[in-house]
Amino acid sequence: MPDSGKSDPSNPGPPPGEEEKITLEDALLELYRLRAMCDVSRAVAGTLDLDRLLNLIVAKTTDIMNADRSSLFLIDWDTEELWSKVAQGVRFMEIRFPMHLGLAGAVATTGETLNIPDAYEDERFNREFDKRTGYRTRSVLAVPMNNKAGERIGIMQVLNKKGDEEFTQEDEEILKSLAGQAAITVENSQLYEEQKKSFISFVETLATAMDARDPITAGHSKRVTDYSVAIAEELEYSEKQLEILNAAALMHDIGKIGVPEVVLFKDGKLDDEEYKIIQSHARHTLNILDKIHFDREKKEIPMMAASHHERIDGEGYPLGLSGEEIPEAGRILAIGDIFDAITSRRHYRDRMEFIRVMRVIDEESSSHIQLDFVEAFKHLPVSRIIMIMEQDNVEPVESEDLELFKKFTLNDLQELLERGDREESLTQDEQHLVDRFNFYYHRSISEGWVPD
Amino acid sequence: MPDSGKSDPSNPGPPPGEEEKITLEDALLELYRLRAMCDVSRAVAGTLDLDRLLNLIVAKTTDIMNADRSSLFLIDWDTEELWSKVAQGVRFMEIRFPMHLGLAGAVATTGETLNIPDAYEDERFNREFDKRTGYRTRSVLAVPMNNKAGERIGIMQVLNKKGDEEFTQEDEEILKSLAGQAAITVENSQLYEEQKKSFISFVETLATAMDARDPITAGHSKRVTDYSVAIAEELEYSEKQLEILNAAALMHDIGKIGVPEVVLFKDGKLDDEEYKIIQSHARHTLNILDKIHFDREKKEIPMMAASHHERIDGEGYPLGLSGEEIPEAGRILAIGDIFDAITSRRHYRDRMEFIRVMRVIDEESSSHIQLDFVEAFKHLPVSRIIMIMEQDNVEPVESEDLELFKKFTLNDLQELLERGDREESLTQDEQHLVDRFNFYYHRSISEGWVPD
Repeated sequence: MPDSGKSDPSNPGPPPGEEEKITLEDALLELYRLRAMCDVSRAVAGTLDLDRLLNLIVAKTTDIMNADRSSLFLIDWDTEELWSKVAQGVRFMEIRFPMHLGLAGAVATTGETLNIPDAYEDERFNREFDKRTGYRTRSVLAVPMNNKAGERIGIMQVLNKKGDEEFTQEDEEILKSLAGQAAITVENSQLYEEQKKSFISFVETLATAMDARDPITAGHSKRVTDYSVAIAEELEYSEKQLEILNAAALMHDIGKIGVPEVVLFKDGKLDDEEYKIIQSHARHTLNILDKIHFDREKKEIPMMAASHHERIDGEGYPLGLSGEEIPEAGRILAIGDIFDAITSRRHYRDRMEFIRVMRVIDEESSSHIQLDFVEAFKHLPVSRIIMIMEQDNVEPVESEDLELFKKFTLNDLQELLERGDREESLTQDEQHLVDRFNFYYHRSISEGWVPD
Repeated sequence: MPDSGKSDPSNPGPPPGEEEKITLEDALLELYRLRAMCDVSRAVAGTLDLDRLLNLIVAKTTDIMNADRSSLFLIDWDTEELWSKVAQGVRFMEIRFPMHLGLAGAVATTGETLNIPDAYEDERFNREFDKRTGYRTRSVLAVPMNNKAGERIGIMQVLNKKGDEEFTQEDEEILKSLAGQAAITVENSQLYEEQKKSFISFVETLATAMDARDPITAGHSKRVTDYSVAIAEELEYSEKQLEILNAAALMHDIGKIGVPEVVLFKDGKLDDEEYKIIQSHARHTLNILDKIHFDREKKEIPMMAASHHERIDGEGYPLGLSGEEIPEAGRILAIGDIFDAITSRRHYRDRMEFIRVMRVIDEESSSHIQLDFVEAFKHLPVSRIIMIMEQDNVEPVESEDLELFKKFTLNDLQELLERGDREESLTQDEQHLVDRFNFYYHRSISEGWVPD
C-alpha cells in the first residue's frame, strides 16, 4: 500500500472541484470500502478453478456486504436452470434448479435488481429452502451478473443484512460492482475449464475410437484410466495429480496408431517380428506425446503414458527401466493395464475365471508390478471394480447388488474365492456375494453392450 | 461507485485509531490512487489473451505511474531470456534478449527493485536501445513480478517520470502492487494459452500420426489446414474465426480411424462397397467430434469438419447438403482437400502436371466447390502455396526463389502455364518463374522428406 502520509506534487491530486464537499469521515469510509473491493478483486483474480472461485466470491461478498449469507448462481441457458457449486468438506457439490424459481429466478429472468426488506412478504420468494434447513430469510438483495458482452450469465444475492437492517441503495451499488467483477473472473475461469474439458474429451474420444477398431480392445483405455485413478485415490493423490494421471492414462495406447492393423488385430499366434512390431506401440506413444505441447506440470505425461509396459524387474519395454526409475504413474498404469487385459472378453469367449485373474495379479507382483500398489488396488471396494469393468454395459448393476459390493474389497473377494476353491464353507452372505459377482462377471454381452 | 455522500451506520467505518492522523488531502489522494488501481485490476482481469493483456498492463502502468514509458518482460527460465510482445499495427511482435542484460536483467536476475535517478550513471544500464531509437532514458524504476508461489516470472519497469522527477519510495510501492496484480493475471492468461496450445498440438499430432500410416496421405491434414487458413485470410476472417477453422480443418479426416486400414490404404481399384466404406469417414468424423466438449463458439466444429466432402450442387456426402446449407468452413476445406489430393505424390510417382491441377480446380468450380472461394484461393501468392506444399521437405525453398514467388499469384501462374501450353512466348522473367516453380513442384522426394 502506498504510504499516504507523504504527498507527492508530481502525482496529480484529485481533479479540481470534484470532491471538494467531501468530509474526512466520508473519504475514509469510501477508502475503507474501496480497499475491501480491491482486496476482493485481487483475491478472486488468483484462481481459475471455478469451484474454488465461486466459493471465494461468496465468502468475500458475505463479508464485504455485512450480510449473513450470500450465493452466486450461474445461468445454464441450454437447460434454463440456475446452478452453483458449494463446498462440502473437501469436495464441491453442484446445486441446480429451474431458472424461474424464487427471487434469484426473478432476477435471472428479468435482469432487474431486487431489494426486498422481508422475503416472506414477496410472493416470488420460494420458502422451500427455509423449510428444509430451518433458516429464516429476511432481507434479500439480488443483482444480475452481466459479462463483457452484456449477456446475463448469473445472479448474486445476499441475505439478512446484519443488525436486522435492510439493504440500502449504496449496498446495491456495491453488490453490482462486485457482480461485475465476479462476472469477469467467472467467465475467465469458465473459458479455462471449457478448454480443459475440450482437451480431455478429445483425448478420451480418440482413445475410445481407436480401441473400438477391435472388439477385444473396445473400451480398454477408458477402463485402464479408471482403474488407475481408483488406485491413485487409494494412494491419496491430490486432485491435480489425479488430473495428470487421468490424461496420461487415456493416452497410454495412443501409439497403437503407428502399428499396422493387420498386425495389431491379428487373430492367431504372432511371430517374433510381429510381436516386436506390437511392442513398438509404447515407443510410438512416447514419440507422439513428445510432440505435444504440455505445460510445466504436465511435462511428465509422455513418459508416464509410455511406461505402462515397463516392469519393476527391468525386463519391460520400451526403455527397460526398473523399480523407481519407472514413473510412478507408469507403475500404476501397469496394474490397470494387466488387470483389464486379463478380465476382458476375448472374441465372444467368456472372461478368465476371476480366481485365476487374481492369481495372475499376485504372480506378477514384485517382479512385474509393484506390490504395495497392488495392495492399494486390492483395497478398493468390489463395487468400484465392477462399475469400471461393466461401464459399457447398458444393463446396469442393480443398486441392491452395488450396496453389497461396497462392503467387500477386492481382497475380501479373492479370499472368498480361494476358500471356495479349497472347498471351505462360506456363510450364506459370503456365498451370495460370490454368486452376484459371478453373475455380472460372466453375464453375456450379446445384447447389453453400448454400440459405438 | 458507492455514493460517498451518504454514510451508513450499519457498515463498519475504518478500524478505530488506525487512520486518525490522516488529513483530508491525504485521504483524497489515496482514494484517487486506489480508484486508479482498482480500474487497472478490473481492466486487466477482462482478457485472457496474453498479447492484449501485456499491452494493456503496460499502457495502464505508464498512465498510473505518471511515466513516459513502461515495459513488462517475462522470464523464460528454459532459455534464460527476457521476452515480451509489443503491438505492431494489428499484430504483436515478440522481443527477446538474454536475461542478464541491462537494468531489467539485473532485476530479473537478483529479484531486487532498482530505482535509478539517471540510468547513464549506472554501469548495468544497456545503452543499445537508446542508441538505436534516439530515446533518452533518464529515471528508471524496475520491480520483479512474483507469482502466487513466490516464483519470479518477470519484471516491470517504468522510464522517465514526468516533470523530470525521480521515482519516489511511494512510486516503488505502487509499482510493486501493480506488478503483483499483473503477475496473477499474466499467469492466468499463460495457463489458458498453454491449455489451448496443448489442445491444438494434440489434434495436430494425432492427425499427423494418422496421415503418416500411409505415404499417400502423409502430411495431408496439416496441408489442407494451411491451405484453408490461407483462403480464409483472403476472405478476411478474424483471428477467432481463423482459430476455429484451423481446429476444424486439422480434424476433418479424424473419422478415418473408423475405416479399416485394409480398405483405407488399398492399393488398386476399389469396388462399390469399399468406396462406400471409405466415404463413411466423413460421417465418422461427425460422430466422433460430436462426442467432444466444445465451448459455445466452437460448437460448429463437428459440422465444419465433417462437411469437407459436401458439394455445392448437393451431390456430396455425408449429408448431401447444397450451397449455403454447407457450413462455410466446409466449403473452404473442400478446396484445400481437393487441391492437396491432386497435388500429392502418389506412391513414388510424380505429381500431376500443375496445369492439369488448375484445370481440375476450374472444372470443379461452381458444381463442386464455390467459385468465389476458388477465386480467393487463386489470389494467394505462389510463395504461400509452395511453402505449404513443401512443408515436410527438409530441403528449403531458396529465399531468392521465394521472393520471386511472392510477386505472382496462383492465378498469374496458371495464366503463364496456359500461355505456355498454347505455345505463346513468355518473357524471360515469366519463363524463369515457371521453371523455378516446376523445379520445386517436380523435385524428387527421395532424400528430402522429413521422416516421422
